[in-house]
Amino acid sequence: HARVIALVHNKWFERFIISVIVLSGILIGLETSRTLSQTHVSWIETAHAVILSIFVIEVVLKLYACAPDLKKYFRDGWNVFDFSIVVVALIPMTGQFAVIGRLLRLLRVARLISVLPELRLIVTTLIKTIPSMFHVVVLMLVLFYIYAVAGFNLFHETNPQFWGDLGTSMLTLFRIVTLEGWTQVMYLDLANHTWAWMFYVSFIVIGTFIIINLFIALVLNNLDE
Amino acid sequence: HARVIALVHNKWFERFIISVIVLSGILIGLETSRTLSQTHVSWIETAHAVILSIFVIEVVLKLYACAPDLKKYFRDGWNVFDFSIVVVALIPMTGQFAVIGRLLRLLRVARLISVLPELRLIVTTLIKTIPSMFHVVVLMLVLFYIYAVAGFNLFHETNPQFWGDLGTSMLTLFRIVTLEGWTQVMYLDLANHTWAWMFYVSFIVIGTFIIINLFIALVLNNLDE
Amino acid sequence: HARVIALVHNKWFERFIISVIVLSGILIGLETSRTLSQTHVSWIETAHAVILSIFVIEVVLKLYACAPDLKKYFRDGWNVFDFSIVVVALIPMTGQFAVIGRLLRLLRVARLISVLPELRLIVTTLIKTIPSMFHVVVLMLVLFYIYAVAGFNLFHETNPQFWGDLGTSMLTLFRIVTLEGWTQVMYLDLANHTWAWMFYVSFIVIGTFIIINLFIALVLNNLDE
Amino acid sequence: HARVIALVHNKWFERFIISVIVLSGILIGLETSRTLSQTHVSWIETAHAVILSIFVIEVVLKLYACAPDLKKYFRDGWNVFDFSIVVVALIPMTGQFAVIGRLLRLLRVARLISVLPELRLIVTTLIKTIPSMFHVVVLMLVLFYIYAVAGFNLFHETNPQFWGDLGTSMLTLFRIVTLEGWTQVMYLDLANHTWAWMFYVSFIVIGTFIIINLFIALVLNNLDE
Ligand code: NA
Ligand code: NA
Repeated sequence: HARVIALVHNKWFERFIISVIVLSGILIGLETSRTLSQTHVSWIETAHAVILSIFVIEVVLKLYACAPDLKKYFRDGWNVFDFSIVVVALIPMTGQFAVIGRLLRLLRVARLISVLPELRLIVTTLIKTIPSMFHVVVLMLVLFYIYAVAGFNLFHETNPQFWGDLGTSMLTLFRIVTLEGWTQVMYLDLANHTWAWMFYVSFIVIGTFIIINLFIALVLNNLDE
Repeated sequence: HARVIALVHNKWFERFIISVIVLSGILIGLETSRTLSQTHVSWIETAHAVILSIFVIEVVLKLYACAPDLKKYFRDGWNVFDFSIVVVALIPMTGQFAVIGRLLRLLRVARLISVLPELRLIVTTLIKTIPSMFHVVVLMLVLFYIYAVAGFNLFHETNPQFWGDLGTSMLTLFRIVTLEGWTQVMYLDLANHTWAWMFYVSFIVIGTFIIINLFIALVLNNLDE
Repeated sequence: HARVIALVHNKWFERFIISVIVLSGILIGLETSRTLSQTHVSWIETAHAVILSIFVIEVVLKLYACAPDLKKYFRDGWNVFDFSIVVVALIPMTGQFAVIGRLLRLLRVARLISVLPELRLIVTTLIKTIPSMFHVVVLMLVLFYIYAVAGFNLFHETNPQFWGDLGTSMLTLFRIVTLEGWTQVMYLDLANHTWAWMFYVSFIVIGTFIIINLFIALVLNNLDE
Repeated sequence: HARVIALVHNKWFERFIISVIVLSGILIGLETSRTLSQTHVSWIETAHAVILSIFVIEVVLKLYACAPDLKKYFRDGWNVFDFSIVVVALIPMTGQFAVIGRLLRLLRVARLISVLPELRLIVTTLIKTIPSMFHVVVLMLVLFYIYAVAGFNLFHETNPQFWGDLGTSMLTLFRIVTLEGWTQVMYLDLANHTWAWMFYVSFIVIGTFIIINLFIALVLNNLDE
């Protein structure tokens, strides 16, 4: 038991796991090459099976290292993350689920974050800033909802492509707030309603104002720490 | 009277009002679905009437809680906001005013801001930063006005779509300052005037410079507090 | 002499001048309306003459208030600004110079900045930050020059619309750094050179990195004060 | 030897070198004018040879000034930069390598950075901030890689123009993160998959969130110093 604990905390064990993850990522990348993935299909499948086995062994070793207190293992969010990826990978995905299986396999690359301490720190920090943004995001959602329903009521008859239903309206507003081609949408409505610019300009001014303040809040929040 | 005061400050009373506002929002959202709004039109109208009644009762209760000093109620800007929404909702809007009525009904969703303390705080803070931006906004307006008149005089004959009158010129400048498709407008003028790029580049440089400084002023203003 | 000094520092004298400037601005705006400017042409010209006379009198009074030390007047940059606008306005601009005359008249609106203390302060502050940005701007120019010549040499034969000569290349780079329609330019070159993306991506990464650092320098510069 | 040391540190020697670099830059600019570069080709080539000779002499003098400890010269990264440019310029580039030769000649303009102390300081500061961004850049690459492979697997059949292979997918993601014409790409996929907006919106939200945090880290890093 002590040797397993020593092993899972060993620098070379960590480096080996990092190498396996990088290899897994390269393999997934190679699969996007059509010629390669067709001629070496059996070879690639074997490699994936080996990589998965290594991940399973890693999880078992880490669980054993925490034994008998298994809760200790699951108390760390990153362990839960690693465990879920391995468990999900063990579910056989064939036939029509093959694409989903390939996408879930892609999550193994995200394990690079859990295994590299520096990336883990950055992502943990990023996730910790989310609660401080929660209420601004709710405010943003209220703004989006009001403008989406208003946009639907005002423009859905003359401009159904962008304001045809509530979902489409939300997507159009997201596009407008990224300032991407918003004039293209506006000119369609301006042709029917001379006052349409007020809807767009007011939304951009209020929306970017809230986003800038969200940004300032993040800076000040970081300054406090 | 004391029981009414206790009631309007009760946590569950507040939660009930929040639920009613959320329900009102969902109802307004459901109305955007054509099939649903046509088959259940009477049901939806009844629900709106019930919601409005609850809002009226809420306002009356809060007014009574402040009695006899009714000014106390209106001293809080958010109470004035809630009161206006309810009063406006009581004006019958039918026939050609139906769309306006539906848009005013949408303002009830904005009551979510007045009823949730955290959102109220954020919006109050945002509104408080407006005076500190006032003079930069005036400067921005002077810049817009000068460039709008200049743009009209220089380009209105050859490019009437974007510089045809003062209002159109202002909208075109707003578009340029958001950096959205500004080259598309410039190339139209560059075809007639080789020096047209100077107009656009100078406006973008000065305009974004002022906006960035407005942003910095906001950050520094927040840092002071 | 003492009465003139008292007059030019009088609050109401300042307010009168502000009103005249605003009136001048409204007049210039009204001239953009074709119907109005054609039917009331003589009336508008008279108003402009009256406004110009008021500005001349203002300058003379302020000069007299500083007498006998006239250098004192010209030591304030804003007085030089006001003086230049009035002097330039006195040069008769007719015939083919009429458009230039109308644009120079537009500068009178900019007098709003010199006459309103708050705007004057903001613009003075903005101008003061320019020296601190000088070297970053020189660095940006070096980057633009290198990429413009490189872009000309690499793409001018296959993509003359955007890289035809050095001036066009500079304008194209300015467009790319504002992230406006840069992919449209890139895809034209990508069709002929598979490595063209490196040129564009490297320029965007380096260019926006320098702009962000210019921005940070401005924030830190402001924090020092 | 002492006189050489005095010479290379002389203010006028530095100014002379700056003038030669600026002249070199102007010459490279003039070459982009077709008429000029064809009629004066021999004259321009002579000027380039003279400029190169001056640069060679400068390097030799600076090396001699550091003698006998030549390592002292190469310990300064900017000296290595100058030395490399001169050495590379001495390699004859004719025939099919003529374009490469012209691009390498362009690097001489970049010598303006190494010769002007203020620009050298800015660039040194910029380069020093790179290590602090290293891990965020790795995180960004992991995000890009995951979304590139996912985008390839989901869309490569129906939208090969933007998701045809891994490289194209990476370029498409870079374009999306600059918010340039991202809706154009999305609408192509939205036509085939109703859920495609989730891919785009999630990538924009996560991507810009990481970039904003990279930006904040840079500000805070600068504040510490
Ligand atoms: Na854009
Ligand atoms: Na943009």
